[in-house]
Amino acid sequence: MDELAGRSLDWINGAVHMVDQTRLPTDYEVLVVDTAEDMTAAIKRLSIRGAPGIGVAGAYGVALAVRQYGGDPNRLSAAISSLRTARPTAVNLARMVDRAATIIDHGFDAVLQEAHTIRREEIDASFSMGQYGADLFQDLIERPDLRVMTICNTGALAAVERGTALAVIQTLHERGVLREALPVETRPLLQGSRLTAWELDRMGAPHRLLVDSAGPFMLARGAADIVVTGADRVAANGDTANKIGTFSLALGARYAGVPFVVVAPESTVDMGTPTGSSIEIEDRGAAEIITVRGVQTAPRRTQAMNPAFDITPVDLITALVTDRRVVRFDRGQTLASVKPGSLRR
Amino acid sequence: MDELAGRSLDWINGAVHMVDQTRLPTDYEVLVVDTAEDMTAAIKRLSIRGAPGIGVAGAYGVALAVRQYGGDPNRLSAAISSLRTARPTAVNLARMVDRAATIIDHGFDAVLQEAHTIRREEIDASFSMGQYGADLFQDLIERPDLRVMTICNTGALAAVERGTALAVIQTLHERGVLREALPVETRPLLQGSRLTAWELDRMGAPHRLLVDSAGPFMLARGAADIVVTGADRVAANGDTANKIGTFSLALGARYAGVPFVVVAPESTVDMGTPTGSSIEIEDRGAAEIITVRGVQTAPRRTQAMNPAFDITPVDLITALVTDRRVVRFDRGQTLASVKPGSLRR
Repeated sequence: MDELAGRSLDWINGAVHMVDQTRLPTDYEVLVVDTAEDMTAAIKRLSIRGAPGIGVAGAYGVALAVRQYGGDPNRLSAAISSLRTARPTAVNLARMVDRAATIIDHGFDAVLQEAHTIRREEIDASFSMGQYGADLFQDLIERPDLRVMTICNTGALAAVERGTALAVIQTLHERGVLREALPVETRPLLQGSRLTAWELDRMGAPHRLLVDSAGPFMLARGAADIVVTGADRVAANGDTANKIGTFSLALGARYAGVPFVVVAPESTVDMGTPTGSSIEIEDRGAAEIITVRGVQTAPRRTQAMNPAFDITPVDLITALVTDRRVVRFDRGQTLASVKPGSLRR
Repeated sequence: MDELAGRSLDWINGAVHMVDQTRLPTDYEVLVVDTAEDMTAAIKRLSIRGAPGIGVAGAYGVALAVRQYGGDPNRLSAAISSLRTARPTAVNLARMVDRAATIIDHGFDAVLQEAHTIRREEIDASFSMGQYGADLFQDLIERPDLRVMTICNTGALAAVERGTALAVIQTLHERGVLREALPVETRPLLQGSRLTAWELDRMGAPHRLLVDSAGPFMLARGAADIVVTGADRVAANGDTANKIGTFSLALGARYAGVPFVVVAPESTVDMGTPTGSSIEIEDRGAAEIITVRGVQTAPRRTQAMNPAFDITPVDLITALVTDRRVVRFDRGQTLASVKPGSLRR
């Protein structure tokens, strides 16, 4: 991330500049987005992705909409509505668009400042998760250099800077205690190969890539000291929804006797969902499974079972790290018993 | 498999005809191989693959070599030696080449008859495994229609006809008791997508394809009644080496409480290997991981950990089915306590 100095997006000279994530890992291109319509399109085609990342992008999109349509309430409202629904399942997007939209009457400058504030909050949260997580890892593992397995992309590209689970790996690397990161490729969309390997390379962190199904076996063979993942949603009892493949790594970690840690911001904790069994699993259809980056890999009419994410039960999770607390499930702590504290800075 | 009527290869009009497996699933092409050199090349580039398949191909290759070089012992010996080492790790190839080579002095017709005999034995073994396996599955599961998860390609394409684990699925389908087969795609080389989905389609068996990491989670969600896999080698204690990803499915099956069954011919049982920990794991390097069917999916210089297979410990295996016996590990039976019996016909 040369131009953007380790950020997925930034506000530069009156426009949002963002890494076009659809072009990675083969090309590093920066998109310049200066209209709400272009922002909606960029979010839809996944040029920017990850819950925190699209939340910030959405807030900037509202600022762009106010600059375009400040005198035309109907067009402004339509532009904001399109932004809000560009990705229907990501709660962060709607939440941050709504937050920016509450002050549109104060004008472009005020909304832009709110977007900057949201961006700053996401960056601060990522930094804090990295510190809480790295401290926990160094407590859990009695080695001077850690080998950490992870899945999907949870780095700066999924947020603004640093990310969630990958922020912990980055912090360990900055502390000089990361021996090796072991990302799995994360089929079907290969976020581990395309994005995480690219980010680890950019941060100079030693790493090796694995196919997803090699993760549990290499854990059993002692190849890693700990597994760390992000989360799409954490239920009130600690059950965690995350990218498909997370559950397999949790089973492998349990078999191998290594800790399994979830890292996610407080906004991911959903106390309104009692357990993982209340979470519906989206099936994304066959197209992603029978082709890889446009190349056909199975007979064209093959049907598929394509769960987008899985549920890891809390009894397989050692701890949850957020930007404001560490909940040690392995010691009987719960989300109710450990209250959120302060950000680490 | 139109022309070859469900076989991976056959002897037709003085030559070996084989499905070119490198072209599947997009193209069905039959290679005609009438020299030992072409056979060696076909085995090397994986046009024919699977331990039983390349064993039979190797035996026919010896017959072709005798026809070419019957009067020239040096060239004959060189051609046989090249065949024997076309795939260094597959013990079946060397074993069947050696068997055919012991009678080269009897001339082409005798060697060809021996190759036909080897082919017949493989077909009989596949049929027998299918019968033993299907009976076992119907014993283990109290449902009228079975949902069966599997990995890699263990069908006719890996043998001559029917195969090993997939022979059991085919037999269940022929008995009218297969509700659904659930192959996982089997990264990195996608044998599940490219070959198994294609074979299931050809046999008219209902099936859905999954990414590898979805297997354990969908087992936990109750999507399958049983898991069945082939084997590269079975150690004396029952520990089983098989395609990477097999261990993950075994963990998932155990978590879900469903049986996990290995199907392999007697020739795969290696009483000289005491346990799985004596089996060396081949690492096949980064190229297979950072590209998929020629398309780059990770940064070019990415390093990888690429174990070609994994070891499933016997305590995660319900039973081993061979062409001559069923060993119920879940009931305390062992390879020593259950002697091989007769073929099922």
